[in-house]
Amino acid sequence: MLITLMTDFGLDDVYVAVMKGVISGIAPGAAFVDLCHAVAPQDIRGAAFRLWMAVPYFPAHTVHLVVVDPGVGTSRRAIAARTSQGIFVGPDNGVFSYVWAESSPRQVVELENPRYHLPGMSTTFHGRDIFSPAAAHVAVGVDLGALGPEVTDPVGLPLPSLELTACQIAGEVLYVDRFGNAITSIGRLTWDRDTLLLEGAFGGCGRARFRASGVQVVAGRRQVYGIHGAYGEVSVGTALALVGSSGLLELAVSQGHGAQALDLQVGDPVMVVGDIEVEL
Amino acid sequence: MLITLMTDFGLDDVYVAVMKGVISGIAPGAAFVDLCHAVAPQDIRGAAFRLWMAVPYFPAHTVHLVVVDPGVGTSRRAIAARTSQGIFVGPDNGVFSYVWAESSPRQVVELENPRYHLPGMSTTFHGRDIFSPAAAHVAVGVDLGALGPEVTDPVGLPLPSLELTACQIAGEVLYVDRFGNAITSIGRLTWDRDTLLLEGAFGGCGRARFRASGVQVVAGRRQVYGIHGAYGEVSVGTALALVGSSGLLELAVSQGHGAQALDLQVGDPVMVVGDIEVEL
Amino acid sequence: MLITLMTDFGLDDVYVAVMKGVISGIAPGAAFVDLCHAVAPQDIRGAAFRLWMAVPYFPAHTVHLVVVDPGVGTSRRAIAARTSQGIFVGPDNGVFSYVWAESSPRQVVELENPRYHLPGMSTTFHGRDIFSPAAAHVAVGVDLGALGPEVTDPVGLPLPSLELTACQIAGEVLYVDRFGNAITSIGRLTWDRDTLLLEGAFGGCGRARFRASGVQVVAGRRQVYGIHGAYGEVSVGTALALVGSSGLLELAVSQGHGAQALDLQVGDPVMVVGDIEVEL
Repeated sequence: MLITLMTDFGLDDVYVAVMKGVISGIAPGAAFVDLCHAVAPQDIRGAAFRLWMAVPYFPAHTVHLVVVDPGVGTSRRAIAARTSQGIFVGPDNGVFSYVWAESSPRQVVELENPRYHLPGMSTTFHGRDIFSPAAAHVAVGVDLGALGPEVTDPVGLPLPSLELTACQIAGEVLYVDRFGNAITSIGRLTWDRDTLLLEGAFGGCGRARFRASGVQVVAGRRQVYGIHGAYGEVSVGTALALVGSSGLLELAVSQGHGAQALDLQVGDPVMVVGDIEVEL
Repeated sequence: MLITLMTDFGLDDVYVAVMKGVISGIAPGAAFVDLCHAVAPQDIRGAAFRLWMAVPYFPAHTVHLVVVDPGVGTSRRAIAARTSQGIFVGPDNGVFSYVWAESSPRQVVELENPRYHLPGMSTTFHGRDIFSPAAAHVAVGVDLGALGPEVTDPVGLPLPSLELTACQIAGEVLYVDRFGNAITSIGRLTWDRDTLLLEGAFGGCGRARFRASGVQVVAGRRQVYGIHGAYGEVSVGTALALVGSSGLLELAVSQGHGAQALDLQVGDPVMVVGDIEVEL
Repeated sequence: MLITLMTDFGLDDVYVAVMKGVISGIAPGAAFVDLCHAVAPQDIRGAAFRLWMAVPYFPAHTVHLVVVDPGVGTSRRAIAARTSQGIFVGPDNGVFSYVWAESSPRQVVELENPRYHLPGMSTTFHGRDIFSPAAAHVAVGVDLGALGPEVTDPVGLPLPSLELTACQIAGEVLYVDRFGNAITSIGRLTWDRDTLLLEGAFGGCGRARFRASGVQVVAGRRQVYGIHGAYGEVSVGTALALVGSSGLLELAVSQGHGAQALDLQVGDPVMVVGDIEVEL
């Protein structure tokens, strides 16, 4: 029984531990992996992207519990779902939509059955009172269908932008990591010798092909030439574009902070321009 | 074997990991939950309150290991104890007294038996040398009585203040969480339609009843009208008083930082004034 | 199957969780202990010292996975090794050399066998693609020799400096912890009543003996008199030298931040001067 947890609770308080306590009471022996608790408060997109990065590397029987929930106490639904990649429990606010764009849910249910809530439910901490008990019950084998009625219209976020034309690929900065790498929506990219093949991530279906050294990457007010395979291919302090570990185009500075040096923030447009062969 | 850990060690060093290593050597297969390692250095009250929030949500066989220990190396005692809520291991400095006010220990012992210490004990890291071995031995079934002689007078902190009169409930700010919610000693509060029932937490036995919309909450230089059930009941940026997830009165700002906006710190007085029916 | 992880990834991203996901897929039921993820980016020495502090307290069957890897994507080797203290997996950049100075590896191999890599390997995240699969396979019993060819010349860092003469012990600041304690290379020290016995740590073989109250400790522009056994032996706010929990000389300020107060940084020289009896 492997359960991951992602929240915007931080680690200064005991809220994450309380969730693990509740789960341990229902599912003795559950093993926890903290996905991340440093999501900015109420940053649903940041949580959606982190989940998209992590989920493919976990066994398909893993339960992924996400509590980034600005709508707690309102009428937003609490849901659980199953895809080929895992089981997902959290608020119905779109936080799962990046993952589900690549592997759509077979079943989504609303966590309405009070039998699977904690007694004495609060209006402010559904992570403890609804989501953790649901995750624990699913982990010990309770059928999703027992948790509540089916949901046919889960909330979706707008997916990351990616547009292909004959001379340009246009995307956006999705995430800046601790090293300052600015990760973009341009991907997934795979190497075929010195040529890059792009297949739209997040469920996009466009394809394109271009020579890595035959393009420029324009990000903010800066542009860099070519796309590299590793940080070490340029000298220290130099800005570069490279294919990151998830197959997305990244902007970085070798042994520096790319996003700061290039003045990039989440949402900023990024373009690859040059000789691009689009396949429809 | 579920063992929680709370320290003021932070996560920049390996001290917490060292404790888990020691425990793993004595109790192979022990499962760890980090309660919190961001307690301010030597903040016994902050640790006591966090423990009070978390313990009720863990199974009663859990071992709670706390190392917030400004007296390490002095003559303060090292203790272990059992209550109906769990087993507790740490310094005898009052850090358990909020929890024990609600569920008093059946047995408290001093960790004097050198057989259950790590060989080559230091004077500066009893978390590693005394508390972790004790927690591990208890987790694998060693009787508390084997660890050392009984303690009949464990150190207690002054309990959070709460005073009830016919027109006023007076308490204090106990804790400010990562979201800026200022959690007070006024509780536990439960809803009975639009009426709130107060039963003294932390072992207090006073009871009172009042209409949620019929009171004002005075905190620092500000006052707010009425007590709400959820953040979403007021507009964004508005200060409100509400019943938090542990049943304590909280001061918050909807999607803002309540403690900063209201200039509240731990220890500040908070009052509920209005038509309050005290039951003796 | 106990696996520790140390990285410079921080906890804001999901990179650490991704490694645990990969391991969980190969070694179901693996238990994780986070050694530390707050190593400064690319600080190999800081990682080497933390590992040295922690490893002796873990069972000898533990797999220690370290990813502090400025050379990722270059020709630096990826290695795994076994010593009497545990199994080690990480980059061949010297990060293990402090630990191995005290317990040298029986076997070191290069992680070359692609059968034990993740398919679709990246050039930027070998923690996920090479090191985690190797750690997981070793944890489930795969022989080190299966992972790749033997390495006879693993990279070593210069060991912490320690020089003994008849009137002086000269070392350096190795590490500053969260409490501000400046931990030095002068050790290991053990008490024999009021006399201290020094035996060179990190594989050093010099020995010396001196009276704790008969020496001065010179660090930066300051000096303190005598070496103490505990923080509580001096008044609050006073600078002192003491024997830390790993047996190394530390400079501290009682209930203050020693390194700041004494203006000490990693690498600064520290000397013990006075009547020192060196044994050859």
